[in-house]
Amino acid sequence: MDKAQLESIVARYRQNLLDGVVPFWLEHSVDREHGGYLHHLDRDGSVFDDRKMMWMQGRGVWTFSALYERVEKRDEWLEAARVGAEFLRGRCRDRDGNLYFLVARDGTPLMAPYNWASEAFAALGWAAYSRVSGESWAADEARNTLDVFMRRRENPKGKWNKAMPGSPKLVASGVPMILLNLVGELGGVIESERLELIAAECIETIGLITGPDGTMYEFTNPDGSRPAGPEGRHVNPGHAIEMSWFMLEEVRRRAGSGKSEAADDELVALALKVLKRNLEIGWDEEHGGIYYFLDIEGRPHPALEWNMKLWWPHTEAVYALMLAAEMTGKQWCDEWFERVDAYTWLNFPDMEREGAWFGYLDRRGERTHEMKGGRFKGFFHVPRALMLVAESAERRAK
Amino acid sequence: MDKAQLESIVARYRQNLLDGVVPFWLEHSVDREHGGYLHHLDRDGSVFDDRKMMWMQGRGVWTFSALYERVEKRDEWLEAARVGAEFLRGRCRDRDGNLYFLVARDGTPLMAPYNWASEAFAALGWAAYSRVSGESWAADEARNTLDVFMRRRENPKGKWNKAMPGSPKLVASGVPMILLNLVGELGGVIESERLELIAAECIETIGLITGPDGTMYEFTNPDGSRPAGPEGRHVNPGHAIEMSWFMLEEVRRRAGSGKSEAADDELVALALKVLKRNLEIGWDEEHGGIYYFLDIEGRPHPALEWNMKLWWPHTEAVYALMLAAEMTGKQWCDEWFERVDAYTWLNFPDMEREGAWFGYLDRRGERTHEMKGGRFKGFFHVPRALMLVAESAERRAK
Repeated sequence: MDKAQLESIVARYRQNLLDGVVPFWLEHSVDREHGGYLHHLDRDGSVFDDRKMMWMQGRGVWTFSALYERVEKRDEWLEAARVGAEFLRGRCRDRDGNLYFLVARDGTPLMAPYNWASEAFAALGWAAYSRVSGESWAADEARNTLDVFMRRRENPKGKWNKAMPGSPKLVASGVPMILLNLVGELGGVIESERLELIAAECIETIGLITGPDGTMYEFTNPDGSRPAGPEGRHVNPGHAIEMSWFMLEEVRRRAGSGKSEAADDELVALALKVLKRNLEIGWDEEHGGIYYFLDIEGRPHPALEWNMKLWWPHTEAVYALMLAAEMTGKQWCDEWFERVDAYTWLNFPDMEREGAWFGYLDRRGERTHEMKGGRFKGFFHVPRALMLVAESAERRAK
Repeated sequence: MDKAQLESIVARYRQNLLDGVVPFWLEHSVDREHGGYLHHLDRDGSVFDDRKMMWMQGRGVWTFSALYERVEKRDEWLEAARVGAEFLRGRCRDRDGNLYFLVARDGTPLMAPYNWASEAFAALGWAAYSRVSGESWAADEARNTLDVFMRRRENPKGKWNKAMPGSPKLVASGVPMILLNLVGELGGVIESERLELIAAECIETIGLITGPDGTMYEFTNPDGSRPAGPEGRHVNPGHAIEMSWFMLEEVRRRAGSGKSEAADDELVALALKVLKRNLEIGWDEEHGGIYYFLDIEGRPHPALEWNMKLWWPHTEAVYALMLAAEMTGKQWCDEWFERVDAYTWLNFPDMEREGAWFGYLDRRGERTHEMKGGRFKGFFHVPRALMLVAESAERRAK
């Protein structure tokens, strides 16, 4: 890609971020009355469900903090981050510090804390908020919540785990994935030695769940072999692609903190192999776009929605490809970027209405939902990718 | 419909049942080695997951028993029913008699008994099997399992319930629905007085969850009002349509047992209102077929697969319409039957391979899965509808 192409990408991504996505969420999501973020938002921003998923609270805090930290020091962004950070600090936790999965608009707990990712995203949000606000309580919350997460990860669902003792114990890709993302955010919040230990553990697990050809499996046996049945064949290309840029960011983190290792080249090579392979198997050659799920052997996938095209694998792919191109200069990264970028911009931003993004398409690319935010779509993947792609392209253009 | 039309329907439904559907499941599903039924069956009948869902065990026992009882006294059908009935009797239960949700091929429990429908379908299967086999232990099992179901229904998910004490208690349509189906099968297994009490309770609840226009809601408040948010707007047209023929069968049961009531006409009228209204709102005027789920106000539905077309709402609709036409002679029932029947036969039976049915289409009617059986598709809705439609059409033709 030449300088003009890169500059055009910077302009396009930043314009959509600042004129489309951020204003939409700032106006419709930030709950000035009860705190936190409303995130079940229809096409026009109207709220079709006023309950609040905990995931979306932590993620929103992260995104508003990151905008303030990385894009511009706008008071309204810092203030919007505070609205979420303080809501999370409130009544959203049980006595053990576990975050409820779902709360009412005013924070009344509605669904038990059975999902460990709630803690991970809250820690992510508080860590970023503590950096931009300088408020030390937020760093304490991030640290404490990380502890809750680490305590829970052996049996993440706790008493809500429905697997019987006789069922196979599987390694899930979600834990190292979320932890590696956290590693990049927790510098300055936890001791450096602990951070390095967590990072090393993540990299080891990633090696375990990745096949020799780069396919990343959602579930493996503890020895890395694949379990029988659909779990062992289940691939989530978006997860694998997102993981690939977490790995690349880990190499950048080490470089930034003077901790570069001989193993860094290997990690970059692994990240690129994972990225390329999972794009290749995840891409729909007929209709374009990245499948949501795959059965690696082409057997029937248990999820009815497996062949849908969701926004987030595409946002993760454009950033993974831009960063990989920046770090390695590989031609195929730019070629794939152009392909994924074209599909993404054709289908997801709502260009009839300022540009906030739709999220759900069927295999052909027709929208199944008009909503801009939902149970699992908040203010996170889209602004993050827009921000990070623009940053990386800007560095390359210089 | 004239006699020739009805006879042609009888021939077509029975031929597909006897030459397509039953041979496929008899060959590929009945597990001669470990007992029970394999039901994750790919297009060619090969097993892509050898675990066994408890739902599909009870349902399979019911279907093989019903074939023997209603279609023909074939020993291989009775024997296939026994293979499931005895598997269920084995190690599939915990100490309290709750049935595990999922077991390994050999019956080893894999997933905890968090789902009350397992007991309901087992009771259905054992009751039918006890009638055709004359084995009294099966009637005892049906009775005991009904007791487990009745004990559990106040808090069906038990300790796996993730709703917090502060969340609204909702009335779910699933309980009266499954119970009303059971009422039709448990005559002779439980005392008649108890049966009538259960039936009366079901009818009362159905009144509660049905709007004045006939829309049947999946969830209502205990006073029949609709809860705020997506639960209160959630409609499952297939459930409502299936419920409508359970109501009609209840009227037939009362007539058959000499218990006809003045209220029967009202129940028939309610069943027809529910049937018509939920077909009208559930039908996709653009591409044909019945939507899987709806938001009654047209807001975004939380389920990604809401606009897919699944086999079972269509099988339930053809039978509900045929039976309604038989019982009331209404012209619109025949007109709707022809419409639903045409869509169903065009899309679901695999006519390139003897006629066992596919299950999953996207909104346009393109198959998303090639499988004939899956986690929630066993040997139940298709053969049941084929059998019952043929019976009803045959009575009408005479």
